[in-house]
Amino acid sequence: MVEDDEDCGTEIHRARPVVEPAALHLCERTANIFRALGDVNRLRLLSVLSRQEMCVTELTEMLHDNLPAISQRLKLLRAERLVRTRRQGKHVFYRLADEHIAHLISNGLAHGSEPVED
Amino acid sequence: MVEDDEDCGTEIHRARPVVEPAALHLCERTANIFRALGDVNRLRLLSVLSRQEMCVTELTEMLHDNLPAISQRLKLLRAERLVRTRRQGKHVFYRLADEHIAHLISNGLAHGSEPVED
Repeated sequence: MVEDDEDCGTEIHRARPVVEPAALHLCERTANIFRALGDVNRLRLLSVLSRQEMCVTELTEMLHDNLPAISQRLKLLRAERLVRTRRQGKHVFYRLADEHIAHLISNGLAHGSEPVED
Repeated sequence: MVEDDEDCGTEIHRARPVVEPAALHLCERTANIFRALGDVNRLRLLSVLSRQEMCVTELTEMLHDNLPAISQRLKLLRAERLVRTRRQGKHVFYRLADEHIAHLISNGLAHGSEPVED
């Protein structure tokens, strides 16, 4: 168990390099992406799309959910640029936006599946 | 612009393989991780820790913030297993929990820095 943090005095840190945090506007955009990923139903939907592109009817079947709910989640995920669409005839196919999103999902699920140590 | 999703009939999808979503409990744990990442101040803090381990005093300097605020964020990130601690004398050093977290942050920031296409 870690005790409460205390100010340990600045003089001993002088030799350490200064590290700048990522830019504020970049962190704001990225936090929005993580918030879009931080919902159990959206994440289950994305876990299916990480296997193959699908239209809303297929997603409704795979997730045993209703079409309006799935459609609403897809709209939010598209607005946050986590999924892209491709039209083919009357079908609109959804897929993950890019490899970054695919890695985010696979890394997140990998971390989530690790046993809790402490 | 994509039109509203419509049910396109199930019979044409029969040939496609069934894809199971990730397990519900796994998605719940993973969504918690993404929610912990989905805050601009926590993300700036993590972007610093992704460069090197630091104690709370150093983080307070790098982020130009106050110690109680930083300490509170670290507590939440530790509870969600995004950071780990190492004690050395009176110092408690914080670092990212593992490579998954490092990849989540770098991939998230990479996606966040991409230009918006549409």
